[in-house]
Amino acid sequence: MNRPSKRTPEEMRPVSLERGVAKHAEGSCLIKFGDTHVLCTASLEERVPPWLRGQNRGWVTAEYGMLPRATHDRMRRESSAGKQSGRTQEIQRLIGRSLRAVVDLGALGERQITVDCDVIQADGGTRTASITGAWVALHDCLKWMEARDMVKTDKVLKDHIAAISCGIYEGTPVADLDYAEDSSADTDANFVMTGKGGIVEIQGTAEGEPFSEEELGQLMGLAKQSISKLVELQKLTVL
Amino acid sequence: MNRPSKRTPEEMRPVSLERGVAKHAEGSCLIKFGDTHVLCTASLEERVPPWLRGQNRGWVTAEYGMLPRATHDRMRRESSAGKQSGRTQEIQRLIGRSLRAVVDLGALGERQITVDCDVIQADGGTRTASITGAWVALHDCLKWMEARDMVKTDKVLKDHIAAISCGIYEGTPVADLDYAEDSSADTDANFVMTGKGGIVEIQGTAEGEPFSEEELGQLMGLAKQSISKLVELQKLTVL
Amino acid sequence: MNRPSKRTPEEMRPVSLERGVAKHAEGSCLIKFGDTHVLCTASLEERVPPWLRGQNRGWVTAEYGMLPRATHDRMRRESSAGKQSGRTQEIQRLIGRSLRAVVDLGALGERQITVDCDVIQADGGTRTASITGAWVALHDCLKWMEARDMVKTDKVLKDHIAAISCGIYEGTPVADLDYAEDSSADTDANFVMTGKGGIVEIQGTAEGEPFSEEELGQLMGLAKQSISKLVELQKLTVL
Amino acid sequence: MNRPSKRTPEEMRPVSLERGVAKHAEGSCLIKFGDTHVLCTASLEERVPPWLRGQNRGWVTAEYGMLPRATHDRMRRESSAGKQSGRTQEIQRLIGRSLRAVVDLGALGERQITVDCDVIQADGGTRTASITGAWVALHDCLKWMEARDMVKTDKVLKDHIAAISCGIYEGTPVADLDYAEDSSADTDANFVMTGKGGIVEIQGTAEGEPFSEEELGQLMGLAKQSISKLVELQKLTVL
Amino acid sequence: MNRPSKRTPEEMRPVSLERGVAKHAEGSCLIKFGDTHVLCTASLEERVPPWLRGQNRGWVTAEYGMLPRATHDRMRRESSAGKQSGRTQEIQRLIGRSLRAVVDLGALGERQITVDCDVIQADGGTRTASITGAWVALHDCLKWMEARDMVKTDKVLKDHIAAISCGIYEGTPVADLDYAEDSSADTDANFVMTGKGGIVEIQGTAEGEPFSEEELGQLMGLAKQSISKLVELQKLTVL
Amino acid sequence: MNRPSKRTPEEMRPVSLERGVAKHAEGSCLIKFGDTHVLCTASLEERVPPWLRGQNRGWVTAEYGMLPRATHDRMRRESSAGKQSGRTQEIQRLIGRSLRAVVDLGALGERQITVDCDVIQADGGTRTASITGAWVALHDCLKWMEARDMVKTDKVLKDHIAAISCGIYEGTPVADLDYAEDSSADTDANFVMTGKGGIVEIQGTAEGEPFSEEELGQLMGLAKQSISKLVELQKLTVL
Repeated sequence: MNRPSKRTPEEMRPVSLERGVAKHAEGSCLIKFGDTHVLCTASLEERVPPWLRGQNRGWVTAEYGMLPRATHDRMRRESSAGKQSGRTQEIQRLIGRSLRAVVDLGALGERQITVDCDVIQADGGTRTASITGAWVALHDCLKWMEARDMVKTDKVLKDHIAAISCGIYEGTPVADLDYAEDSSADTDANFVMTGKGGIVEIQGTAEGEPFSEEELGQLMGLAKQSISKLVELQKLTVL
Repeated sequence: MNRPSKRTPEEMRPVSLERGVAKHAEGSCLIKFGDTHVLCTASLEERVPPWLRGQNRGWVTAEYGMLPRATHDRMRRESSAGKQSGRTQEIQRLIGRSLRAVVDLGALGERQITVDCDVIQADGGTRTASITGAWVALHDCLKWMEARDMVKTDKVLKDHIAAISCGIYEGTPVADLDYAEDSSADTDANFVMTGKGGIVEIQGTAEGEPFSEEELGQLMGLAKQSISKLVELQKLTVL
Repeated sequence: MNRPSKRTPEEMRPVSLERGVAKHAEGSCLIKFGDTHVLCTASLEERVPPWLRGQNRGWVTAEYGMLPRATHDRMRRESSAGKQSGRTQEIQRLIGRSLRAVVDLGALGERQITVDCDVIQADGGTRTASITGAWVALHDCLKWMEARDMVKTDKVLKDHIAAISCGIYEGTPVADLDYAEDSSADTDANFVMTGKGGIVEIQGTAEGEPFSEEELGQLMGLAKQSISKLVELQKLTVL
Repeated sequence: MNRPSKRTPEEMRPVSLERGVAKHAEGSCLIKFGDTHVLCTASLEERVPPWLRGQNRGWVTAEYGMLPRATHDRMRRESSAGKQSGRTQEIQRLIGRSLRAVVDLGALGERQITVDCDVIQADGGTRTASITGAWVALHDCLKWMEARDMVKTDKVLKDHIAAISCGIYEGTPVADLDYAEDSSADTDANFVMTGKGGIVEIQGTAEGEPFSEEELGQLMGLAKQSISKLVELQKLTVL
Repeated sequence: MNRPSKRTPEEMRPVSLERGVAKHAEGSCLIKFGDTHVLCTASLEERVPPWLRGQNRGWVTAEYGMLPRATHDRMRRESSAGKQSGRTQEIQRLIGRSLRAVVDLGALGERQITVDCDVIQADGGTRTASITGAWVALHDCLKWMEARDMVKTDKVLKDHIAAISCGIYEGTPVADLDYAEDSSADTDANFVMTGKGGIVEIQGTAEGEPFSEEELGQLMGLAKQSISKLVELQKLTVL
Repeated sequence: MNRPSKRTPEEMRPVSLERGVAKHAEGSCLIKFGDTHVLCTASLEERVPPWLRGQNRGWVTAEYGMLPRATHDRMRRESSAGKQSGRTQEIQRLIGRSLRAVVDLGALGERQITVDCDVIQADGGTRTASITGAWVALHDCLKWMEARDMVKTDKVLKDHIAAISCGIYEGTPVADLDYAEDSSADTDANFVMTGKGGIVEIQGTAEGEPFSEEELGQLMGLAKQSISKLVELQKLTVL
C-alpha cells in the first residue's frame, strides 16, 4: 500500500497549533493539519440560551463554516444560499458535544462560550482538526476569564479533548486521512477522545464495502496513538 | 440494574413490520418498535439528481420527518419553522447512506427511489427503526419494478440492512433503548449492519462519562445479536 | 350518472372515527373517509399567542400537513421546500376558524389548544375529514382537562362541528367527492355546519362552468344530510 | 339598523374604475370602492409555467399585495418578513381562479398574463375590489394584444367577472361591507359572479353565530344586485 | 448633445408634491418626477428598536419597495421571492440615513417614525425622488404630533433634505436623469443635500469610463442648483 | 488634532499584500491594513450567469463575508441568520462594480471570475481593503489563465484599481480611518480610483454635520495620494 501522501500508515500530517491569532476573541487558535487550516475563536457572552436561563449553569456551543474557496472547487456561500447545509449542522453539533464532554457547565456560571471553527483551507479532516483546535481556543478563553476572577480554568475544563480521522485505504488501516485518501478510502471513521483515553464520540462509515469489528479495532488503535500525540501537543501549546 | 421497561439487557421491544400500508406508494412498511411507530414509503421517480444525469446510474435517498405530536411535548412543525433542523438532516443523511450501502446503483438504472420515513409516534430509536423499516419499503418498491420488468430485485438489493441503538444504562450495556432509557443513559450508540454482519455505520456518543473500548465491544455484541434478529424478521416479512 | 365509486349521489364513503390513537396527545382521532386517512391530535399548552395575553381568554388553532407520499405522486416535503404552500395555509386557517365557531374561548382560560391534522393517506376531502376528526380530538382534550378540574367540557364546547364536500359530477349533485370525482367535477363546495344545523363556512368553487343558485341549494341539501350523519357518528364515538 | 356608513342595506359605496393608469403595463385599472383603492396591472409574458409547456394553452394568474400603510396600523412589509402571509396567498389564489373562470386558455396561446392587485389604501373589501378591477386590466391587456394581431379579445374573454362582499350587520343583510362594518359583522360572505349571473365562487364565514340557509339566500340576493351593477360599470368603462 | 427628453442640461423634469394622499398615515406625500411616481407615508409608533430602548431617544427609518409592474418589464415581487434584493436594501438604508441627518432624535422622544417609499411607477431617479418626498411625509407626521402636543416640529426637524441624480450623458453633465438617460450615461451620481447647502450623501459611479475630479465638480454644481429648487418646492408645499 | 492611532493626517496604516496564500484558488491575496486582514480569492468558472449566455462576454463578480469574531463583539453568522445583511450586499456590489471598471469583459470570453473577500479580522476599512486586495487576486487569476493560453492578462485587465477611506476627524481631513477613528468621524468617504487617477466610485456620508464641497475636495486630495501609493504597492507585488 502506498498512501498518496507517502506517509506510513500511522503517520499524521505535520500539525501546528498557533494561539492568540485573533485580536478580538477571548481565546483563539489557528490549527494546521498539513494543508487543512482552521481558525478557531472562542467568544464569551454573559447570557445563556433561553431554555437554560435561571439554572445557574452555562453553555458551550460551536459553529462551523468554510470559506467558499477553501475547497478545490468553489462552493456556494451558505449565507447566500440562505441556509446551512446538513453537513455543516452535523459538524457543528459534533464539535459542540465534544467540547461539552470535558466541561463542567455548572462551574462556568450562567454564561455561554461559542467556539467558531472556520475552515480557511480544506484538505480533509476539517471536523477533527476543528475539535482539536477548539479545545485550545476554549482553554484560552477560560484563562482570560480566570485572569478576571470569573472562573478557575481547571474547575471548568476537566480534561483535554482531541480528534482524528482514520480509515481503510486500499485495505490498510491508516491514520489522518487527507482529502485524496478520504475520497478513495473504503471506510472513514472519526474518533473523539479525552486526554485520559476515554471515548467521547465514534463515527464510522463504510463508503464502499462494510467493515468488520476487527477492522474497527485496528482503526481505534491508530486513533488512540494519534490522539495521544495531539493531546501532548495541546499541553505544550498552552504551557 | 433495572431497566424502566423491565426488559433484560439484551431484550428488544416487540417489533412488527407491516407491508403495503400506503395505497399510493410503490413500497411501504409501518414499523413498530414498542411505542415507536414509523411509516416508511418508497417512491419511484424516472429521473435522477442533476449531478448524476447521463451516467446510467440511479440514486436512493431518504427523507425523515416527525409529526408535531409524535413526541411527549408538541414540537414546532418544520414546514412552519421554514427549515429542517440539524437533527432531521443528520438522520435522513444516515438513512440514505445506510440504504445505499446495500444497493447496486448501476443495476437500478437512471431512476431515483426516495424513501420517506415519517415518525407517527416516538419513544426512542426512531432513526434505527426508520432504517430497518426503510429496507422493507425499498425491497417492495424493487419488487413492484421487477413485476414491470424494470429491474431484478436481487441484482439491485445486495443484502439486508438493519439498525439498532444500544447504550450503557446505569453501568450495564443494554439493547434497544426506549426514550426513558435513552434520556438517562451514559452512552448511546447506533449500529447499522448488513445481513452478512458487516458494519455500515457506527455512531457512539458519550452523554455523560466517556466510554471505554471494552464497553464499545459489549455494545457491539448486543447490536450484532439484535440486528441478526431484525434481519430474520425482514426475511419473514418479505417472504 | 355513474359515480366512479359506484355510490348513489347522496351516499358517503364508509367513515370511521378512532379515538385515543396517539400515546402522547391530550386528545386524538384517526378519521377515515374511505381511503382518506387523517390523524388529528390535540395538544394543550399553558400559554396563548402574544396578542391574546392577559385577556383571560384562550385560543384554539389548527395546523395541517400531508405526508409526502399521501398522494398519488410524491409531493415535495414542505419543511424541505422551506415554507408551507398557500393551499396548506388556507386549509389550516379554515380548520381553526371552524373549531373556534363552537368554542367558548373565555371558558377555556388562558390556554391554547393546537389541533394538528396530518394526512396519512389522501383520496379527496382531506380538509373536511380534518374538521370532522379535529372535533373529536378537541373534545377528548377537553375531557382530559375536565378530569384534571381545569374546565367543564360542555361549557367550552358549545356544539358539534362537522364538514363535507359536495359537488356537481356530470350534471348531478353528489355528496362526499373522492379524488377521482373531485378531479372531474364541475363544481366543488365545502360545507362546515354545527350540530344544530347552523352554517359556519361555505366555500363553493366552479371548476368548469359557473353554477346556479338552484344548484347551490341542492348541494346544501346533500351537505345537511351528510353532516347530520357525521354528527351522529361523533356522538356515538365520544359516548 | 344603522350602518356606520349611513348607507341603506343594498347600497354600495361609490365605485370608480380608471383605465390606463400605469405607463408600462399592457392593461391597468385603478378601482376605488369608497376609501378602498386597488391598482390592478396586467403583464403579458411570452412563456407559461413549466407544468404547462408544450400544451398550446396559456395561463392567467394573479398576485396580491398591500402597501405597508394601506391599513389603519402599519403592517410589516411581506418582503421584509420573508414570506407572504396565508391571507395574501388565499386572496391571490381566489383572484386567479376567478379570472380563469371567464378565460378560454386555449385561445390565449402559450402565454401568461399576470394581474397584480396592489392595495394602495384599504377600507374593507379589497379582495372583491381586486377581482372587479382585475377584469378591466385583463380586458385591456387582451385589447393591446388584439391590436398586435395576437388574439381576439372576445374569443379569450368569455364573460365579465365581478365580486362583492355582503354580510349580516346587526341582524340585517347588507351589501358591500366597509372595514368598520366588516369588523363587527356576524357573517361575511364574498360572491364572485359572471356577467350572465353564474356563480363562480362563494365564500361565507360566520364570524360570530352560525348563519342559516335563509340568510345565505338573502346575502345572495344582495350580491346579485350589486354584481349586476358592477358589470354594467365595467361595460361602460371599456366601451 | 441632445437629451432624449429634449431637456436642457440643467433642466429637471416637472416635479409635483401632493400631501395628505393616504387616509391612514400620520403624514404622506405623492411625489412625481415626470413619470416617476413615489408614494411616501410616515407611520408613527410608540416604540423604538430594541437596541435603542431606555435611551430617551427616537428613531427614523425608511423602507423602499416597488410595485411589480412599476417598471418596463414586470419584476418578481420581493415578498414572493422571499427576500429584499441588495438594491432595495441599499436604497432604504440611504433614505433612512438621509432623513436622520436633519432630525434631532433626542427631541423626538422614545418613538419611531417609519417612512415607506413605494414606487408606483418608475422612470429613473426613484431613490432621489423618495428622499425628497419622504421629507414632506416626515414633516407632516411631526405636524400631526405637534397638534397633539407630542413634539415641536422645528425642534425635531432641523433642516430640509432633498436629493437629485446627475450624470454625464454623451460627454455633457446633465441634471435629473430619467430611465433612458440613466441607461446610457457614462457616470451617475446621486447627491443628497440640506436646505442650507450642506452635503449629506454623495454617491458617484462610473458606468463606463472613470470620471475626473473636474467632472465631479460640474455634477455637484448641477446638483446644488436642482436641490435648491426642490427645497423651495418643499417649502411651498408645506406652507 | 491627535488621531488615536498617532498617525499624521495623510499617513496610512502599514499595508501588506501577500500573494498565493490559498492552495486551491486560481489567484489569491491576503491584504493587511494594520489590524484589518482580508483574504481575497479569485475563482474561475467556465460559465456565465444565465442573463449573459451566448453573448461571448464574461463576468466578474464579488462576494464579501466576515468571520463571526472578526469584530470586537461576535456577530451572528449570516448563514445561520438565513440571509446576507443589507451592508454585506451593498459592499459586495461595490467590490464587483469596482473590479469590472477595469476589466474588458469581452476579452475574458464566456467565463466568470468570482472574487471572494473574507474578512478574517476587522479594524475599519474592510471594503476598501477588499477592493485593493481583490485586484491582486484577479490579476493572478488572469496570469493563471494566461499560462494556459486562455487570455492575455493585459487585454483583460485595463488598469489598476484601489480604494481608500478618508474622513473628517475632529475637524481635520485624514486618510485611512481605522475603527476607532471611523466610529467618531464626522464624515466618512470611500474612494475607488484607477491607476491612471480616474474616479470609479465615490461614496461620502455625513455621520454628524453635513460636509462642504471644500471638505470633499480635501478628502479627494488625500485619497488620490493614498491610492497612488496603493497602486505602486500592487505593482511591486505582482512584479
